[in-house]
Amino acid sequence: MTITAEAILNPQFQANLDAALTDYFSLHTERAAVFDSSYQRLWDALSSVSKGGKRIRPHLVNEAYTALGGTDIVSSVGVGVAFELLHTAFVVHDDIIDGDVVRRGNLNVTGQFLTLAEEEGLDYETALHWAESSALIGGDLLLTHAQRMIATLTCEASVRDAILDLYEEAVFITAAGEQADVSLSSQPQSALTLERVIQMEEHKTAAYSFGAPLQAGVVLAGADAGLSEVMGEYGRLLGTAFQLRDDYLGLFGEESLTGKSVLSDLREGKSTPIMIFARGTDAWPLIEELRSRTDIEGTVHKQILNALIDSGARTFLEDLEQEYSDRASEMLADPLVPALLADRLTVMSELLAGRRS
Amino acid sequence: MTITAEAILNPQFQANLDAALTDYFSLHTERAAVFDSSYQRLWDALSSVSKGGKRIRPHLVNEAYTALGGTDIVSSVGVGVAFELLHTAFVVHDDIIDGDVVRRGNLNVTGQFLTLAEEEGLDYETALHWAESSALIGGDLLLTHAQRMIATLTCEASVRDAILDLYEEAVFITAAGEQADVSLSSQPQSALTLERVIQMEEHKTAAYSFGAPLQAGVVLAGADAGLSEVMGEYGRLLGTAFQLRDDYLGLFGEESLTGKSVLSDLREGKSTPIMIFARGTDAWPLIEELRSRTDIEGTVHKQILNALIDSGARTFLEDLEQEYSDRASEMLADPLVPALLADRLTVMSELLAGRRS
Repeated sequence: MTITAEAILNPQFQANLDAALTDYFSLHTERAAVFDSSYQRLWDALSSVSKGGKRIRPHLVNEAYTALGGTDIVSSVGVGVAFELLHTAFVVHDDIIDGDVVRRGNLNVTGQFLTLAEEEGLDYETALHWAESSALIGGDLLLTHAQRMIATLTCEASVRDAILDLYEEAVFITAAGEQADVSLSSQPQSALTLERVIQMEEHKTAAYSFGAPLQAGVVLAGADAGLSEVMGEYGRLLGTAFQLRDDYLGLFGEESLTGKSVLSDLREGKSTPIMIFARGTDAWPLIEELRSRTDIEGTVHKQILNALIDSGARTFLEDLEQEYSDRASEMLADPLVPALLADRLTVMSELLAGRRS
Repeated sequence: MTITAEAILNPQFQANLDAALTDYFSLHTERAAVFDSSYQRLWDALSSVSKGGKRIRPHLVNEAYTALGGTDIVSSVGVGVAFELLHTAFVVHDDIIDGDVVRRGNLNVTGQFLTLAEEEGLDYETALHWAESSALIGGDLLLTHAQRMIATLTCEASVRDAILDLYEEAVFITAAGEQADVSLSSQPQSALTLERVIQMEEHKTAAYSFGAPLQAGVVLAGADAGLSEVMGEYGRLLGTAFQLRDDYLGLFGEESLTGKSVLSDLREGKSTPIMIFARGTDAWPLIEELRSRTDIEGTVHKQILNALIDSGARTFLEDLEQEYSDRASEMLADPLVPALLADRLTVMSELLAGRRS
């Protein structure tokens, strides 16, 4: 059995969080019933894509909060739900940008509406428009409710305002990363540098997924502003390592565990750090030729992976992940970080580094 | 000279509102400078699409607020900016759904990025993906900041919370209307009833554009909950009349004033109430045949309009608008509505009914 984050992280928090998310989706699905029937279907779809995630962001909030002595479970669940909904909103909108119909091995919002449209006999163009428009609207709803969760926290006003600021900053940086991503992928590959691509990944993922949740936990616990700053930096480093691990699993992972095709990143021609590195090696002409084939399954796929391994690109990616992970760990030695918090985050980062999904 | 809302509505408020919006966009464009250059371009584009609107929503907030004795201009501007940003966010995302590149006679976010992409020599498919993805991200930013404006109001906590509720309700209803719109336009025309289409328009526009801003003004002024309810209903009726007027101008208006092609609604085959009515008349086979032509400019366009006029469809639309407008006016006779507020809203609704843009 794989060791999962759920198995060692606070199970009481996990249960409360799951209950809060279930309540959230039930409430709005019910509210949607008085409108057009497809509105309720949209809420069903949103609810289903929210299921099955690792809930990393809420756990980061809670680990930081409780390690610093926080006991107001209602608030930490509230902040946790906010970051989880924000994540789902980004995922739903990101899937539109990437043209994906599957997420975590299941049909996403677009995918579910496409299925529905097929049952109704709509032509593909009409179906896709309906499906992607629904995903756009659905993401807007989750984005609104995510921030609302924070705005309506019953904690002290100054704490709530500080978390609202962290939330805004996280959205602003994530949007910058998304915008860099869509812009970079429109440019000729030669314009891409390793630095820009790593920075894009940091902005797109690390800030809202790691930095902001940890900082929110710190602020919620009423801890020092200096510690919040350290946690922000720690989160950005750990989050970048996490994203690099994602890139790794997207190529070398097991589909049955990741729920994601190991071909999709290759098919999309994603310019990840490993690809930028590979571009500078002798293996690149071969990789590029293989990538451009329409049938990159089976043998061709293995050849690409072998070329990435033989050229040292895989090792480069592993080293880069390790480097970010190490730099993150070093932050935990900062005297502002209490031992309990450092210990918990060490366990968490080891789990994340060893993850296979 | 056409009488504009700006000419008679509070010019001091208008000036403060414009200054606040200018500050808002300057601040974020500046913040964006440290990121990828296309992020700043995105903020420039968002700023430009926000310009030139009628600012109806903020004025409704302020008219209700000041008529009820409100004097805290900072709060009314804050709430006004929130509804204006919400409107711009919806417009930016709606333009993606409609595939539009022009808004108010100028290039919208998609249009501006398409131009940029053309200068950079990108192929059309890549360009469109970049442009629409940018608009998606841009709308998410405005949507986040709109609600943040309310969450960070410095007014009494209970007032802020009540406005947050109104805001959420407005987003929830608008999303229902949007979802109904994309769903109805995927269905065969025969499935559409007049009732469903009018209700869709009410949900999509009237709630967030009229009902919620008026109610927010009432709540901000600390007035009676009963009055807020009356204003919500009044706003929904007036807003529906407004949307019907929009449909009218989209067909019979002057392009030089509306900034919108009188052909676009016809080209998109939009199922508006007038079209549903026309479907039930003898003129429909002709209209349908003419609409399906690729060259609906000039003579063909005039023939369609004449068919709509001769079949009584235009009169039907005018009567329907009048009916909603009259029902709205009747609400103002409610004893809960103070005379000053009723007078101001009467002027405002007359302006809106007589508008040509």
